[in-house]
Amino acid sequence: MSLPTLLSRYRSLITAGLTEVLRGEGLLYTILRYHVGLEDEHGSASSHMGKLLRPNLVLFTAEQLGGELNQALPAALGLELIHNFSLIHDDVQDGDRTRRGRPTVWSRYGVAQAINAGDLMQALAITKALHAGKDAVKTLLEATIEMIEGQGLDLGVEEKAVGVEPYLEMIDKKTGSLIRCAFRLGAVIAAAPTEVEEALAEAGQELGRAFQIRDDLLGVWGDGAITGKPQGSDIRCKKKTLPAAIALSAVSGTDRTDLERIYNKKTLTDEDVARVIEIMDKAGVHQVGEQMVIEHLSRAREWLAQVPFSKAGMQEMEELMEYLAEREQ
Amino acid sequence: MSLPTLLSRYRSLITAGLTEVLRGEGLLYTILRYHVGLEDEHGSASSHMGKLLRPNLVLFTAEQLGGELNQALPAALGLELIHNFSLIHDDVQDGDRTRRGRPTVWSRYGVAQAINAGDLMQALAITKALHAGKDAVKTLLEATIEMIEGQGLDLGVEEKAVGVEPYLEMIDKKTGSLIRCAFRLGAVIAAAPTEVEEALAEAGQELGRAFQIRDDLLGVWGDGAITGKPQGSDIRCKKKTLPAAIALSAVSGTDRTDLERIYNKKTLTDEDVARVIEIMDKAGVHQVGEQMVIEHLSRAREWLAQVPFSKAGMQEMEELMEYLAEREQ
Repeated sequence: MSLPTLLSRYRSLITAGLTEVLRGEGLLYTILRYHVGLEDEHGSASSHMGKLLRPNLVLFTAEQLGGELNQALPAALGLELIHNFSLIHDDVQDGDRTRRGRPTVWSRYGVAQAINAGDLMQALAITKALHAGKDAVKTLLEATIEMIEGQGLDLGVEEKAVGVEPYLEMIDKKTGSLIRCAFRLGAVIAAAPTEVEEALAEAGQELGRAFQIRDDLLGVWGDGAITGKPQGSDIRCKKKTLPAAIALSAVSGTDRTDLERIYNKKTLTDEDVARVIEIMDKAGVHQVGEQMVIEHLSRAREWLAQVPFSKAGMQEMEELMEYLAEREQ
Repeated sequence: MSLPTLLSRYRSLITAGLTEVLRGEGLLYTILRYHVGLEDEHGSASSHMGKLLRPNLVLFTAEQLGGELNQALPAALGLELIHNFSLIHDDVQDGDRTRRGRPTVWSRYGVAQAINAGDLMQALAITKALHAGKDAVKTLLEATIEMIEGQGLDLGVEEKAVGVEPYLEMIDKKTGSLIRCAFRLGAVIAAAPTEVEEALAEAGQELGRAFQIRDDLLGVWGDGAITGKPQGSDIRCKKKTLPAAIALSAVSGTDRTDLERIYNKKTLTDEDVARVIEIMDKAGVHQVGEQMVIEHLSRAREWLAQVPFSKAGMQEMEELMEYLAEREQ
């Protein structure tokens, strides 16, 4: 599946920008370049970058609405760095050892420096975004705060598993915040009218849900060799994912007893993970999840119809949404 | 020892400002209010605030140089919040269970939420500082980045103990950055000439050294009941402190062999800690350290003489420096 145009056009621009922001000397900067995929494990130039969805959306939206690419770039880079700082800390918090098929920062450099590296990246992100102006920084900080609050909900220890509604509330904050922010930043840079910014934020909310739900489905049914994370690891770590939320809402009888028993265990075995997937498959969780992805993308389309993108721009958004619906990594 | 005027005048203003910034709902905000000392362990109003040295210095400097208190306050609060976010993460990194006589955030709420709470505080800090203008935010972010780089040096695993020069380089970044920033922010708010800002930054550098060295001396010879942290804990954790740096530079023979043997151990016993203190006492480390505090304060005075503070203002700075030289907590 080839990368959609929207994720390709600005890719080298974003990569060059990240290289410039993270060019500092010393271990911390080495860690940051490693984390974003600019360098490999030996410090050599590499290209293990992710999809760069968020900064691409900032640049695309700004250009579509008549903003300056030069002014949008610092905001786009700031957002990507905020996203990446959250990933470094997220991996520490979840104890995840692998991301995009590579050892996570904490598993390579220890928890203390991983905390420090994430802190540095947050500060570098805002410093960069300042070049896009005060309004852009304010928008980025609001989203950052919301994202961290969402992470707080995710870490909440009271509930070991949650239903679909609290799940959506959590991902709207944790994942949705930065996707909404991508659209908002584009609108802010282009000085678009409030109603355009709000329609874009709504589209971002829906896109964020589709994106995260797809991620969660890949976490259970995806090919580990493609996704870069061990198959079933979300279940093994009892993460609050959509499949878990749907299963808990939908199943009954022995399946439910088994599900609750397994999710109450401290450590899960291979058999536990296999049994959970069996229960999910029987209850059609995968299909329900796929349907939700389609629905949220459809609502995103409705909101985007209110935004003055060009015809070609709208086609690129469409191509992106199809990619997000079908992506395997 | 009563609090100097400079640390008293703005105290209620700063406390009210922190209360406003940290008024959010949910566990994360509860954690932040607990950490800064606005609330006790049961969520009731409390006043376990620290000395609030940094925000007091911002407000004092701004006023002395003809700046507006209203504009300086958001910058002062931003700086205090940056300081506090670093303390939350520092305690996780060092594994410290006690700060100012109270359980640290991670020891009460776990490492994951402590990381998250610190992240939130960094974002809230910059959001608040934005109200003081773009230049103030830029100044604050530069100091934040330098502070985190200093923390990176402190965590460096290659050297278990360091000499006096690398120690000073480390604390200039880790502690000095935010003290220099306090003076700089005051100058930025007051739109003071560059040479005034630079003289203040030099004074801040010296004051930062005096402050940190005093802290390190209290960590070995202070009264745990007053300092709020277990006596000898810096030695037990083999922290890179001035007493350790001086001792490693100064002692020889059996004392040196013992010192190196103990600092190479994984875990230190009560006897090890007592032996290290004995070696330090014999080598006159405490006196050397006290002398360094006096020297750095004296250099701070020389730089401050170049700053157009009022006569009354200069007296207040003098009172503050005497307090910092003699403080026991």
